[in-house]
Amino acid sequence: MARRILVINPNSSKAVTAEIDRAMERLRGADIEIVCTQLDAGPPGIHSQRDSEMVVPLVLAEIEAREDTTDAFVIACYSDPGVFAARETTAKPVFGVAQSALAFAVTLGERVGVISLSPTAVARHMAYARALRLDGFIVADLPVGKSVAELQDEAAATEPMIAVGRELVERHGANVIVLGCAGMARYRERMEEALGCPVVDPTEAAAGFALAALRCGYRTVRR
Amino acid sequence: MARRILVINPNSSKAVTAEIDRAMERLRGADIEIVCTQLDAGPPGIHSQRDSEMVVPLVLAEIEAREDTTDAFVIACYSDPGVFAARETTAKPVFGVAQSALAFAVTLGERVGVISLSPTAVARHMAYARALRLDGFIVADLPVGKSVAELQDEAAATEPMIAVGRELVERHGANVIVLGCAGMARYRERMEEALGCPVVDPTEAAAGFALAALRCGYRTVRR
Amino acid sequence: MARRILVINPNSSKAVTAEIDRAMERLRGADIEIVCTQLDAGPPGIHSQRDSEMVVPLVLAEIEAREDTTDAFVIACYSDPGVFAARETTAKPVFGVAQSALAFAVTLGERVGVISLSPTAVARHMAYARALRLDGFIVADLPVGKSVAELQDEAAATEPMIAVGRELVERHGANVIVLGCAGMARYRERMEEALGCPVVDPTEAAAGFALAALRCGYRTVRR
Amino acid sequence: MARRILVINPNSSKAVTAEIDRAMERLRGADIEIVCTQLDAGPPGIHSQRDSEMVVPLVLAEIEAREDTTDAFVIACYSDPGVFAARETTAKPVFGVAQSALAFAVTLGERVGVISLSPTAVARHMAYARALRLDGFIVADLPVGKSVAELQDEAAATEPMIAVGRELVERHGANVIVLGCAGMARYRERMEEALGCPVVDPTEAAAGFALAALRCGYRTVRR
Amino acid sequence: MARRILVINPNSSKAVTAEIDRAMERLRGADIEIVCTQLDAGPPGIHSQRDSEMVVPLVLAEIEAREDTTDAFVIACYSDPGVFAARETTAKPVFGVAQSALAFAVTLGERVGVISLSPTAVARHMAYARALRLDGFIVADLPVGKSVAELQDEAAATEPMIAVGRELVERHGANVIVLGCAGMARYRERMEEALGCPVVDPTEAAAGFALAALRCGYRTVRR
Amino acid sequence: MARRILVINPNSSKAVTAEIDRAMERLRGADIEIVCTQLDAGPPGIHSQRDSEMVVPLVLAEIEAREDTTDAFVIACYSDPGVFAARETTAKPVFGVAQSALAFAVTLGERVGVISLSPTAVARHMAYARALRLDGFIVADLPVGKSVAELQDEAAATEPMIAVGRELVERHGANVIVLGCAGMARYRERMEEALGCPVVDPTEAAAGFALAALRCGYRTVRR
Repeated sequence: MARRILVINPNSSKAVTAEIDRAMERLRGADIEIVCTQLDAGPPGIHSQRDSEMVVPLVLAEIEAREDTTDAFVIACYSDPGVFAARETTAKPVFGVAQSALAFAVTLGERVGVISLSPTAVARHMAYARALRLDGFIVADLPVGKSVAELQDEAAATEPMIAVGRELVERHGANVIVLGCAGMARYRERMEEALGCPVVDPTEAAAGFALAALRCGYRTVRR
Repeated sequence: MARRILVINPNSSKAVTAEIDRAMERLRGADIEIVCTQLDAGPPGIHSQRDSEMVVPLVLAEIEAREDTTDAFVIACYSDPGVFAARETTAKPVFGVAQSALAFAVTLGERVGVISLSPTAVARHMAYARALRLDGFIVADLPVGKSVAELQDEAAATEPMIAVGRELVERHGANVIVLGCAGMARYRERMEEALGCPVVDPTEAAAGFALAALRCGYRTVRR
Repeated sequence: MARRILVINPNSSKAVTAEIDRAMERLRGADIEIVCTQLDAGPPGIHSQRDSEMVVPLVLAEIEAREDTTDAFVIACYSDPGVFAARETTAKPVFGVAQSALAFAVTLGERVGVISLSPTAVARHMAYARALRLDGFIVADLPVGKSVAELQDEAAATEPMIAVGRELVERHGANVIVLGCAGMARYRERMEEALGCPVVDPTEAAAGFALAALRCGYRTVRR
Repeated sequence: MARRILVINPNSSKAVTAEIDRAMERLRGADIEIVCTQLDAGPPGIHSQRDSEMVVPLVLAEIEAREDTTDAFVIACYSDPGVFAARETTAKPVFGVAQSALAFAVTLGERVGVISLSPTAVARHMAYARALRLDGFIVADLPVGKSVAELQDEAAATEPMIAVGRELVERHGANVIVLGCAGMARYRERMEEALGCPVVDPTEAAAGFALAALRCGYRTVRR
Repeated sequence: MARRILVINPNSSKAVTAEIDRAMERLRGADIEIVCTQLDAGPPGIHSQRDSEMVVPLVLAEIEAREDTTDAFVIACYSDPGVFAARETTAKPVFGVAQSALAFAVTLGERVGVISLSPTAVARHMAYARALRLDGFIVADLPVGKSVAELQDEAAATEPMIAVGRELVERHGANVIVLGCAGMARYRERMEEALGCPVVDPTEAAAGFALAALRCGYRTVRR
Repeated sequence: MARRILVINPNSSKAVTAEIDRAMERLRGADIEIVCTQLDAGPPGIHSQRDSEMVVPLVLAEIEAREDTTDAFVIACYSDPGVFAARETTAKPVFGVAQSALAFAVTLGERVGVISLSPTAVARHMAYARALRLDGFIVADLPVGKSVAELQDEAAATEPMIAVGRELVERHGANVIVLGCAGMARYRERMEEALGCPVVDPTEAAAGFALAALRCGYRTVRR
């Protein structure tokens, strides 16, 4: 019987969930089912420290509600809201997309550049990376100045995304880029072409980890 | 008219609040009123990652409810739950006791040892210290293996507290100790005598910062 | 048509290759073929700095010889011999097991302990981890004092492996263990039971990365 | 009876002492007397490594001479000349303004920018911050290119000070500024307005620490 | 009888060896003979990760062949190819020019800037410096964009070398420069004049260490 | 004409100067004269932070008095008193023995252990190493619990010195030892024999640097 990975988008946007769902297609297989959902009571996007903390009780409730029918969880927001609390809540593996993206990126290249939505997101992400001791190889984390909603408009957002990527590569020396937000996998192809280096979608990274963990029998542990 | 510092104990224990209140006596003055409260809907103690994150919405609600009558806030739990979200919630200064204690301690000595309640608290505190880049001077953070409730029994807890402090000093070379939990100021005197070095109560440190900030006109800023 | 991952064991031991091959079983699938080979001209085990450097030309030659029929390479020695030179030699993705194991481990826990064969291996591994900036979360890297050959004797080696793991967990606080040598996946189950935490086989980690990279279209880049 | 804090300006400028004295007004109270003095035999300003080291014997002599009538000392030069030697000279608490300013600033914001007088001061200050392990959160330390004397001309110096502050905020991402020299508190208000973030006067920070230490019974310790 | 230092240029360029030989003149003396050689089977220059690793077996063979007639070895390529393997191959002292240059430079100034040939050399050098924990004081490592052969054309290369040095000094604050390639000592004088700070030739540094080691009886040790 | 290196022992002990002088014998040559002197007005030994700072004006005066007849200075106390101020005082190269010893040691091995006189010396030395960013490769700095005078009694001090060295090697993994005090070169031979690894005398290291600097034309620079 197939094992099920539940990808939780902690904002309320079904469009974002649909984007994530599309990206998951490549990781699905006969033995692995990947289901994506959003938190209907969540904010439209995680844009502030407050958003990222207020959403934690909802994330934990979702995990508790779905624990019996899920084999591994992915929290699909680049602030990894509640990932360590979730590991106290369920014995099933729980992967945050930020820690997964950083860990995956550093095996592809040595100098990781991150694209975040806003300056306050940059500060939040860098503090988290330091907490995980995964900050050393981040050459820069730069804001694109867009909201989650604005990033759904691919036509308008592609150029700004590439411009920030170019600054990471040319000025800061990045040789691999991480998209610091879930639901943006569709930007990968055009950005990789323009920048000449890998562009990591964090949810793909996390689902890849979950897949390997389920197949090989790894679990995640409490802090 | 006196300015008011509100010290929020995010657990529900009135005994802990009373302890904190007693410690605040020395920092009160004609121009500074210090009021202490607990979160009645909070957990009996903050003992897990989950506790420390589930309590954040309550902390933010308390700050919103009291903002008009408060000049500076102190969040009196060594996990500093919600401190950066609080700074988005109110324009009044907000001090977390952990960051205050570490910053104060390093001006007294160079090698800071922290006493936490449990191993999971140690991991949470160290991750937070790294996020703040205040971990470099921490020589060790060791658990005493007691709950918040057990630490109210001074007769039983003093010896274990001193034993952990001694290990920090003798084995790890600490020359200043931080109590990694609010409401423990009463242990200071006996521990300082036994260990021969300063023992920082984090709530005293935070209230001291709040006092200086109010007098000199400093504010805290968003992430 | 299935994509092929070639796992190169850079020592000459067919027994080690067979062990690695067994471990790969769980990562194989309809779309991914995993082939394992050793370097017949390599040393019986990589036990010194000299071994780890002398073997690089052989690794690069093997990659060149097999490039046309391979979609991704895994270099299955915990010294990652030639991994950056290999990325100059082929445009196909190349994963080293050490960098993969460290990156995977830190998504499972926060405090990684490594078990190496000997003190000189510890020094070599730590220097490499620093070069990658993946050393911050390693709480300790301890030697078990066994050769590659001796580790094939599972009956004799299990207890020493568990003993070193226990020191990593109890004295150094590790909450996830990395096996600092290829071909040791069979130790995972008993060690996880004894230690109560995940034990990462580095070749499983690297093959997991290669699998996700092939499915999602990620490549590795030159230094 | 009031406790006395002695603030020692280690240069010979009475104008600087007067400036410091004015800033101290807000920290004085019924229980705390704050007295400011300069070293008449000191240099007109501490502008070199040599200045900062030659002045140490004078600082220690001043502390010895005033020990009986003083409850806490503040050394009001951003090189903290002699602060650790002073703690061997007297058992009374001794605070250096640089370590105090850095510790205070990091509780207000997370990214500290420092304004120093000259490039050689920058190098000296950064080496000291590293020695204290308080360098991690300093995003940059930039020189304004003025002497201590020139900074007394507020009309001429305000614009350059704001310009350097702006570079710290806009280019380096600082969200709190530290004035890397004593006697400049009067710049705070206009700079905070122009920059939109807190601007820390180091002597205010140190006197704030001394005040809290005296009230709560903390002492400083030998290296 | 004089002791002999063998300086091995691991590329095949006799012109580079001649340059190195000239620089050694100042370190020769009655008691110390310094002999320079190249690897005739080596590449024309070490320009890639692959070059730097493929050359190691040749370096080790040269050391073995010359061990009986040599008292100390210098590996004269800024990638220090095989330096740790060499220390397993011979009991005679072995110095790498990169580690020697960094160690020597930091005793001359505090902020070291490195000039490398290409961006890939920069990445390789910085990874090595991190492995040695000698990266902290490197303010930047910048590429001049020249090959080993092009650097033999002093007339054409001097200006670009000075331009990169100027960027290291003026933009990155370096107060000592390291030439990140062997055989460039002749640039020192004009660069020092133009930049106003010391410019370290790595082979001079390594031979200086070898000289002091031979006179005082120091040896180098295995990893 | 020979160039002259002046080695300044900043304490008043002629016995220590004589010891240093003996060690210098191996570095003297036809072109290099090495003269050793002590500060008659200095303390009998540098045992405290205060000692190390009070002696700076004397060191600078000695340098000024001897500048005309000296080509390079070595400050032979492991606290490097006044080394950066000295570089503002004279244009001749000035080497501190601590920075020289650390830089030299890391080219011999990778893991440096330091033996200091007392715990307060350990703290002073480590703060200085951090300031220089030469602390990363120090595995431990341990006190032997002896004064400068007591270390002149070789019969009594050898065993304790070896015992501390053994702890550095066996427990902390050091593979090169630095003697954290001047005038102890005579311990080298017996310690190297007992410990099986190089033991660096800091004055030998500094004089070695000075020798290479004079021959090759390097100078030291202001901070």
